[in-house]
Amino acid sequence: MASLENALTVRSGRVRYARRLATRAFRAKTGEFLAEGPQAVREALELPGTVTEVFATAEAGERHADVGELAHRGGVTWSVVGDDVVAEVADAVTPQGLVAVCRDVVAGLDALPRQLRLVLLCHEIRDPGNVGAVIRCADAAGADAVILTGDSVDPQNPKAVRASAGSLFHLPVVVHGAHGGALAALQERDVQVLATTGSADVDLFDASLDLARPTAWLMGNEAHGLPPEVLEASDRAVAVPILGRAESLNLATAAAVCLYASAKALASTSGGT
Amino acid sequence: MASLENALTVRSGRVRYARRLATRAFRAKTGEFLAEGPQAVREALELPGTVTEVFATAEAGERHADVGELAHRGGVTWSVVGDDVVAEVADAVTPQGLVAVCRDVVAGLDALPRQLRLVLLCHEIRDPGNVGAVIRCADAAGADAVILTGDSVDPQNPKAVRASAGSLFHLPVVVHGAHGGALAALQERDVQVLATTGSADVDLFDASLDLARPTAWLMGNEAHGLPPEVLEASDRAVAVPILGRAESLNLATAAAVCLYASAKALASTSGGT
Repeated sequence: MASLENALTVRSGRVRYARRLATRAFRAKTGEFLAEGPQAVREALELPGTVTEVFATAEAGERHADVGELAHRGGVTWSVVGDDVVAEVADAVTPQGLVAVCRDVVAGLDALPRQLRLVLLCHEIRDPGNVGAVIRCADAAGADAVILTGDSVDPQNPKAVRASAGSLFHLPVVVHGAHGGALAALQERDVQVLATTGSADVDLFDASLDLARPTAWLMGNEAHGLPPEVLEASDRAVAVPILGRAESLNLATAAAVCLYASAKALASTSGGT
Repeated sequence: MASLENALTVRSGRVRYARRLATRAFRAKTGEFLAEGPQAVREALELPGTVTEVFATAEAGERHADVGELAHRGGVTWSVVGDDVVAEVADAVTPQGLVAVCRDVVAGLDALPRQLRLVLLCHEIRDPGNVGAVIRCADAAGADAVILTGDSVDPQNPKAVRASAGSLFHLPVVVHGAHGGALAALQERDVQVLATTGSADVDLFDASLDLARPTAWLMGNEAHGLPPEVLEASDRAVAVPILGRAESLNLATAAAVCLYASAKALASTSGGT
């Protein structure tokens, strides 16, 4: 490891710096964010050049020796600190003794791969837990990217990072305010954009949907759904059918149902899973 | 309405009674629980004989006049109270001025319908938010019942009620500790029990799965999954395929993916949605 020290306190400059990364403004200014807990820190370390420093309690360093080993091999500063320092820096109640300072992993539209089979596009998602959960779903379903448009919550918010369970470090997560540019980038790549809305005439079970084609699933705001101009810019509106008496599905479960419907269709065309 | 009064304070007996329903022991002793917020209170009132009393602020009563009307028609006591009383009784930070005291809606295995097409069975689910979320998913996917076995969290826990978004009042929710009895009741009704586990040889996309048959999806504990004896008692183990680099899906999203795979197969055999 690059260094091993015990002298950091809650008043140390680097600790105070890390703590300020809890705010969006400071993340935007510095281009850094936090990953908390062994799983997220491990995944961040596995993405070269991402982690700049790990704060770890001595106990966490022993329990998660593999994480320390990863930091060591990557030449990442590993600072042994007290529980109070980890508690001060972390957003989570139980960060399990590990917090990493990471360089931005979120990118712009230019990071979008040329070849896309499955994409999740979220417009104006406001809840950090939801953003993390849908990034995790997209990763599980084998999506090539997640794109956030409009005034969406920062996917590098500590709660979002936690809810993504490491998936933030697994696939390109693109933030691009203007939905028009994002939709154009997808349509240019021959990706059909399917906008989910309860009011659509076509539902997910409809035989006329061709889910074996490259597809981007577009999900709207938790409370208000998708605005008309975004629905109009998409290729087709699709409803997740509600077969019982529930009013709706929550965002992450609706995204999972749509993404896995595509994953199944894509798997069958590529000759099985 | 049966009564309209303004004299209740946080020290009133009925308010203190309602507040104690936040604990499982007191719910078990009294056979009552709480529903919070306009949506849950409305759905509870629509299930005859469920609500015994509604605590509402004057403002909430005006804003949600339809809820007051439902209570009135059902002869349910509607108590106009201060914000402090609602805050005292409710578990949620923002119950939006409405809390209802409800009689148990959770039932035993004898409440299970004879004819079943789709069931969600959860074993040792521990998180109240997850239980509510899966009840909501099951409702949306048109499931006939949800069954909780083992040492699962109480689905009438205030957080679970909230997360179910009213669905707790839409379909039979059965609590039965012994998984053996629950599985036998399903198998007696010719329902195949598909146990989800990452280690299964068969995955959800496998053509050999017959999801047009009556099916119960069995999900295990958030951290530990299903124990061997429960897996063995089920008809088949099935994995939700993880196509990217995520370690797993969370419980509610995995349940949604499985339930909707069944819902689609069932819809196609019954001649479309």
